Amino acid sequence: MHQTPVCRRIVLLGAGRVAQHLGPALWRAGHAVTHIWSRTPASAAALAAQVPGAVPVTSLALPAADLYILCVPDGAVSAVLATAEFPPGALVVHTAGALPLAVFAAYPAVRGGVLYPLQTFSAGRSIDWPTIPLCVEAATAADQELLLQVACSLSQVVELVATPQRQALHVAAVFACNFTNHLLGIGHALLQEAVLPFGLLEPLIRETVHKALAHPPFTVQTGPAVRHDAATLARHEAMLTAHPSWQQIYKQLTASIQGQQEPQPSNNELPPRL
Amino acid sequence: MHQTPVCRRIVLLGAGRVAQHLGPALWRAGHAVTHIWSRTPASAAALAAQVPGAVPVTSLALPAADLYILCVPDGAVSAVLATAEFPPGALVVHTAGALPLAVFAAYPAVRGGVLYPLQTFSAGRSIDWPTIPLCVEAATAADQELLLQVACSLSQVVELVATPQRQALHVAAVFACNFTNHLLGIGHALLQEAVLPFGLLEPLIRETVHKALAHPPFTVQTGPAVRHDAATLARHEAMLTAHPSWQQIYKQLTASIQGQQEPQPSNNELPPRL
Repeated sequence: MHQTPVCRRIVLLGAGRVAQHLGPALWRAGHAVTHIWSRTPASAAALAAQVPGAVPVTSLALPAADLYILCVPDGAVSAVLATAEFPPGALVVHTAGALPLAVFAAYPAVRGGVLYPLQTFSAGRSIDWPTIPLCVEAATAADQELLLQVACSLSQVVELVATPQRQALHVAAVFACNFTNHLLGIGHALLQEAVLPFGLLEPLIRETVHKALAHPPFTVQTGPAVRHDAATLARHEAMLTAHPSWQQIYKQLTASIQGQQEPQPSNNELPPRL
Repeated sequence: MHQTPVCRRIVLLGAGRVAQHLGPALWRAGHAVTHIWSRTPASAAALAAQVPGAVPVTSLALPAADLYILCVPDGAVSAVLATAEFPPGALVVHTAGALPLAVFAAYPAVRGGVLYPLQTFSAGRSIDWPTIPLCVEAATAADQELLLQVACSLSQVVELVATPQRQALHVAAVFACNFTNHLLGIGHALLQEAVLPFGLLEPLIRETVHKALAHPPFTVQTGPAVRHDAATLARHEAMLTAHPSWQQIYKQLTASIQGQQEPQPSNNELPPRL
C-alpha cells in the first residue's frame, strides 16, 4: 500500500529518550535528520553526534523541513509550540499517547499531527523498531499520507488511530505495563525480604504473560482471589501488614478479580492453581 | 550433589490440573506412579490413562508406596489427611505454596513434607518441567533427601524453602502473576472498548517484562505516575469513571508508585516516557 520510503527532511525537537531512539532510526530508514533542537546545548550535541548529518541547535528559529517531530515531555509540548518559529505551514507532530491532536488548534500557522510509538524507551536498551506499533493521526489526508510513509519506513506495524482511541490505548498501556512493572517490583521486594532470588519467579512470570497474550486474560485468571480461597487471602493480607500500601493493592485487586468473574463451579479436583 | 534418580513408587491424590501435569512428568522421570486417587472415578481413570502403569482408585485405603503426593486444593488437604488410610509412617507431601509444613502436625502417623512447583498450570498448556522451580521442605534430613531426589529428577531448579519463605514466595507470586494477569485483562478490555487489537500492546508488554527481569523493577518504573504528570493522571482517572473498580486500582497503584520512589529530577528533555 505504501510505496518505497521517500527521504524526508526532518527536524527533531528534544534530545531525551524518545529522540535518542527515534533520531538514529530515522537516519537508518533513509531520512535526513537535518537538525536536532534542545534547550540544553550538550544534549543536542550528544544526540547529533549519533545521527550522521544532523546539526545541533538551541535556537527555536527553525529551518525549513518536511516534518518537525516533538520529542519533549507532554507538559512541554504547548510551551515549545508557543515559542518555536516554524516556517509557515510546517507539519509538526507530537509523539505523546495522551495528548489530543487538538493540542495544535491554538497554533493555526502549523499543520498538526501525531506519531505515537507504543513502546517504553530506556537509555541503553535497544529497540526493535520494525515491531513497534506506530499510531498515526493527522488533520488532512495529505499529511496522513506523509506520516504513514514515514511510519512505514520505521515499522511494519502502523495504524491510523484517532485521538480518543489513542488515549484509550495509553490508559491500557499504563495498566498493562507501568502498573505491571510496579507489581513485579512488589514481588521483587517481597522476595528480597525473604532472602530469595527474584529469578525463582521468572518462569511463572513468563508463562503468565505468554498465557495472557494467547487467551483473553480474564478467562485464564488463576490464584486465590478467583477461586475464593478465603483462608489464603486472609493469610496473605496478614503477611502484608508491614506494607499498608501493598496490602491495600492486594485487597483492591482481589475485589476487582472477584467482581470481574463469577465464582468458578466448585470442583475440588479442578482448582485453578497458582 | 544429587545422584542418578532412584525410581520411587508414588501415589497421586487428586486428578486436577497439578496432578495432570505432575503425573506424566513423574513417569517420564522414571518413577512408578502406581495409583491415582480421585473421589471422581472418571477423573482418576482419565488421568491414569495418561500415566503408564497407574491404577485409578476411589478408595482412600491406600496401598504401600515411597511417596504420596497431595494434588488437591489447599482447602481439601486437611480433609484428605483426616480421611485417608496411609500405611503407618508413610511420607506424604502437599504441593501448596500457601500451606505450612505444620498442616501435618495433627497427623502424627505420617511423615509430612512439601513439594511446591512454582508455576501456573492450565489444561492444555505444556509445562517445561526442567525450568520450573520446585520448593522442597521436610521434617527430617532423610525425607528431605528423598524429596530432593524426586524434585531433581523433574527439574534443574530445586530449592530447600522453609514454610515462611515459601509463603512469602506465594504472596510475591500473587502480585507478580495473578495480579499482573488481571491488569493485562483490564488493558485487554479497554482496547476492546476502543475497538483496537490487544496485539498492539504486545511489544510493550514483552519489553516491560524483559526490563523488569533484567533490572530491579522499581528502578525502571516509567509512566505518568512516576513522572508526576498530573494532567495525564487526571485525564486517565476521568476516562475510567465507567469502571469504578479499575479507577480505584488506578489511583491506588499511582499512589503506591509515587510513594515508592522520590520524584525524579526534573529535566524536560530526559523524561521517563511510557
